[in-house]
Amino acid sequence: MNVLLFSGSLRGDSLNKKLIIIASKFIESSGHKATILDLKEFPFPLYDQDMEDMYGISESVKKMSSHIALADALMIATPEYNGSIPGVLKNCIDWLSRVEPLPIKGKQLLLLSASPSFLGGVRGLWHTRVPFEALGVHVYPTMFIVSKADVAFDAYDKLIDLKKMKELESLVSAFIFYCSRKNI
Amino acid sequence: MNVLLFSGSLRGDSLNKKLIIIASKFIESSGHKATILDLKEFPFPLYDQDMEDMYGISESVKKMSSHIALADALMIATPEYNGSIPGVLKNCIDWLSRVEPLPIKGKQLLLLSASPSFLGGVRGLWHTRVPFEALGVHVYPTMFIVSKADVAFDAYDKLIDLKKMKELESLVSAFIFYCSRKNI
Amino acid sequence: MNVLLFSGSLRGDSLNKKLIIIASKFIESSGHKATILDLKEFPFPLYDQDMEDMYGISESVKKMSSHIALADALMIATPEYNGSIPGVLKNCIDWLSRVEPLPIKGKQLLLLSASPSFLGGVRGLWHTRVPFEALGVHVYPTMFIVSKADVAFDAYDKLIDLKKMKELESLVSAFIFYCSRKNI
Amino acid sequence: MNVLLFSGSLRGDSLNKKLIIIASKFIESSGHKATILDLKEFPFPLYDQDMEDMYGISESVKKMSSHIALADALMIATPEYNGSIPGVLKNCIDWLSRVEPLPIKGKQLLLLSASPSFLGGVRGLWHTRVPFEALGVHVYPTMFIVSKADVAFDAYDKLIDLKKMKELESLVSAFIFYCSRKNI
Repeated sequence: MNVLLFSGSLRGDSLNKKLIIIASKFIESSGHKATILDLKEFPFPLYDQDMEDMYGISESVKKMSSHIALADALMIATPEYNGSIPGVLKNCIDWLSRVEPLPIKGKQLLLLSASPSFLGGVRGLWHTRVPFEALGVHVYPTMFIVSKADVAFDAYDKLIDLKKMKELESLVSAFIFYCSRKNI
Repeated sequence: MNVLLFSGSLRGDSLNKKLIIIASKFIESSGHKATILDLKEFPFPLYDQDMEDMYGISESVKKMSSHIALADALMIATPEYNGSIPGVLKNCIDWLSRVEPLPIKGKQLLLLSASPSFLGGVRGLWHTRVPFEALGVHVYPTMFIVSKADVAFDAYDKLIDLKKMKELESLVSAFIFYCSRKNI
Repeated sequence: MNVLLFSGSLRGDSLNKKLIIIASKFIESSGHKATILDLKEFPFPLYDQDMEDMYGISESVKKMSSHIALADALMIATPEYNGSIPGVLKNCIDWLSRVEPLPIKGKQLLLLSASPSFLGGVRGLWHTRVPFEALGVHVYPTMFIVSKADVAFDAYDKLIDLKKMKELESLVSAFIFYCSRKNI
Repeated sequence: MNVLLFSGSLRGDSLNKKLIIIASKFIESSGHKATILDLKEFPFPLYDQDMEDMYGISESVKKMSSHIALADALMIATPEYNGSIPGVLKNCIDWLSRVEPLPIKGKQLLLLSASPSFLGGVRGLWHTRVPFEALGVHVYPTMFIVSKADVAFDAYDKLIDLKKMKELESLVSAFIFYCSRKNI
């Protein structure tokens, strides 16, 4: 199985990118392929229908859509901005939704979130589900949250809390098992 | 009273910009000032904390924040993208939330939506409330929705349905009355 | 496959009960079993932890949980009350969530809504997803909405709009196919 | 000013009832009147339109509506059940929404939540806003959350964390000041 992973944050030292790397290792150690994208390499402009009418869908949108089309499952780790989905990630979804046929439709998605706040991005995650579900994505009911994430990672970018590491490993494993049942 | 209005869509011929113009006329005919902004003239980049750390808050973000600081009330008309807030508008909020002290905090906001769809952006509006409320904005409970908006405006950019015109006029009037009570 | 169906409304002549019956016929005509429950026959009291501490889980909650445990998939048709899930349906979920082990966890669910309003319960449906997803239910991304439902059914309790009948038939069929792949 | 307070939980020893009592004392010490209701004394049946058609609005619904009509502002403390509003509280709203003219429309509301969970009911609070806003209630943007609430109160039913006590006092005070400006 080929799992595509990316973070909803552009920052180089993003806590969510660290979470993506941990998840990717769990995927690989269970014998599957993990493909990591960095949104920074997909410089989508802010969505503007005039721009789409004049220039069409950009190459970077098409390239990201191809990655999604090739993936058997998706994992996205996203921060919470102002109690909701980051504009960056929403803008990415808005462009992806313009590609026909819609490569993301019917895909399985697992959502993760790392946030320095006490609540750990739980409101953001529930808001992030909605546009994906509106596009026909099967968003896995259980999600994974790291609160106080600015002090949650050790020097090797692993979660200090071993119970949380186990929880993420189990969730990734359960998600992959669920996805594999579909792909028979 | 000075009411600041803008649309969450960048498109030149945006249905939501038409709605903003109708609302601005109702504001002016009731003796108040309407200031219309076009997000296209505020070219915010996609939010990236690295960029903020290196370059700080951009001039266009500061300029928009000053407009908000000077406003007694806000009206935003926004389309719905994929069942939720447009990435463009959310990205705008994400940048505005970085300005200190937060000029949008405590402001009154009325939300409008025009959408070609049958449901007229109702899901998008409810999602749009949340980041504003998370920032301490008083979002007016009643909102205004134009469904099938691609065929809802006449050649003079007024709503063909006179009942809807009346409904918007009443809502704008009730909102301004509510705001004026606060500003005593 | 055994599909359990019920309506989130108690009313005898409920529009959502009519929708349930149409869906059940599509299930049966595709060779599967449809089991219809009526919430009126499961008189759950309003959830009160004191009551649970004193008397435990009631027989009617246990009986409904057994039905869910035996189901391969669920379909719920629900009205929208005040922009959200009906208290009746939420109270039902609150009681079901107290049964251990949780029979509803991991089940597949398709949501439908009939509503006299123009918006047809779309806000209610998106709110109804959340408690189910919080309990680990896989809520199918596509949902089915009948707006202006008070004039949408004919004398034989079928949808007058044949396109909507086809849409529901296709959705039920796609949902059952999806479940059949997941429930190995 | 007369502030009406109640908890969305029926339990006698409810953590949210304790929160209501703390808030009521802050109201009274600032020279205003606090009226506390207990939902247990307003035994609303589960909403059923057949019942309403046959028997009309019950006396307990009318009595609660009268209390709301007499209030200058509302405070509700509610637990989170399954990531959302408790069925008990939603059912209460569903009945209140049937009273004409709607006494709750246009009222100011402050939401509080105490929950034993780590996240302290934040998802529930955001879901609880919606039906109130759909009914025209001005829900104050800032809300107050006590997480791990089972160990948050001392023997005198005060919050052990003095910073949280201060935070609640400030919020109650800011809310009342806001209401006093709006209720001219």
